Amino acid sequence: MASYKRHIDPSSISDLTIGRLSVYLRCVDRLIEVGIETVSSQEMAKRFNLNSAQIRKDLAYFGEFGVRGVGYSVRDLRQYIVEILGLDRERRILIVGAGNLGTALCHYSGFSGDSFLVVGVLDCDPSRINTPTPAGLLVEDSARLADIVDQRRVEIGVITTPASAAQRICQEMADAGIPSILNFAPIRVKAPEGVRVTSVDLKVYLEELSFHLTHGR
Amino acid sequence: MASYKRHIDPSSISDLTIGRLSVYLRCVDRLIEVGIETVSSQEMAKRFNLNSAQIRKDLAYFGEFGVRGVGYSVRDLRQYIVEILGLDRERRILIVGAGNLGTALCHYSGFSGDSFLVVGVLDCDPSRINTPTPAGLLVEDSARLADIVDQRRVEIGVITTPASAAQRICQEMADAGIPSILNFAPIRVKAPEGVRVTSVDLKVYLEELSFHLTHGR
Repeated sequence: MASYKRHIDPSSISDLTIGRLSVYLRCVDRLIEVGIETVSSQEMAKRFNLNSAQIRKDLAYFGEFGVRGVGYSVRDLRQYIVEILGLDRERRILIVGAGNLGTALCHYSGFSGDSFLVVGVLDCDPSRINTPTPAGLLVEDSARLADIVDQRRVEIGVITTPASAAQRICQEMADAGIPSILNFAPIRVKAPEGVRVTSVDLKVYLEELSFHLTHGR
Repeated sequence: MASYKRHIDPSSISDLTIGRLSVYLRCVDRLIEVGIETVSSQEMAKRFNLNSAQIRKDLAYFGEFGVRGVGYSVRDLRQYIVEILGLDRERRILIVGAGNLGTALCHYSGFSGDSFLVVGVLDCDPSRINTPTPAGLLVEDSARLADIVDQRRVEIGVITTPASAAQRICQEMADAGIPSILNFAPIRVKAPEGVRVTSVDLKVYLEELSFHLTHGR
């Protein structure tokens, strides 16, 4: 099963496909919960309101592992997606900005689950430093960012600072060697070549609802 | 310009297209910021790392309004997207669950901007009720949900409660007449027929970063 990894050319896989793999993983987890062991792309599409041709196409990137007329083994499918997304190991997360959002993310399920672990939350505000978050982590001084990244082998930095601090923190994260950054601050941040930044814009969810409110669907 | 609305069949437009319209809106706002008045799909694709054929296809749903060889008027394009997404009017938001995430969303830019307005934040915890959020709203008693929805003409309900309360709050929102719900609780909630629920799963952003960490892109 490990051999398929050699065939993946990540540049051929769009972020949309990756996003759908996350969706398939949720579906597969749900199938396991309800005790289903084998599933065809048609059944999966019907049950979760997805497109069966799209499912086959997305999973075909990664080689053939469905059996025609029978479908996918749910557990094999889960294992494949987990390996493709790199969720078979722990990724360590550092959150910078211990306001309401940063504090919420410290104990957001999924940010500290099987594959991800929040190993620190930093702030520059003395009134926040050394106070505990509801998740039990003590807020630490953001002046210690580089040391903490190094000592705790951080791979993902999360920016939850005000917009005014976001670019500076992004640069500090990159300088400290963090390869991946998730930015929640409402501003575009630029990272040096080789560092990936994904910005989260929660307004898109409201805009989708607004479309449906407008067009009555 | 208003006439194109008659041609939209919302059932023909996927949520992916709607999501891309949100992206185009951010791009167009950026073009306006830097003083660009006309843009072709190719220029827009190059500048924002998008797919020009996809841009043309997405915008073609809504009728022809680019001029061949010249491109789109940036302000017209903005106006079209704003109307399509229904952002030319204010949508009122009620947040239920005044913990860290609910409190953060109260003053999240975008949740209270041109098109959206948070008109209340509710909780059932007496120690939270009547305390002010950093955004200046007073937390109100969630027992008053139905009255508040009615009086303040709420169109979007946001669930930021613990998982254990989410289904009950979803039902209360639907019963009170809220047509659209954005669920942040880490659980699947079911709304009655005719009420749209979108669930936000922030872990998908981490999974995307994990893919790129794994495959070295």
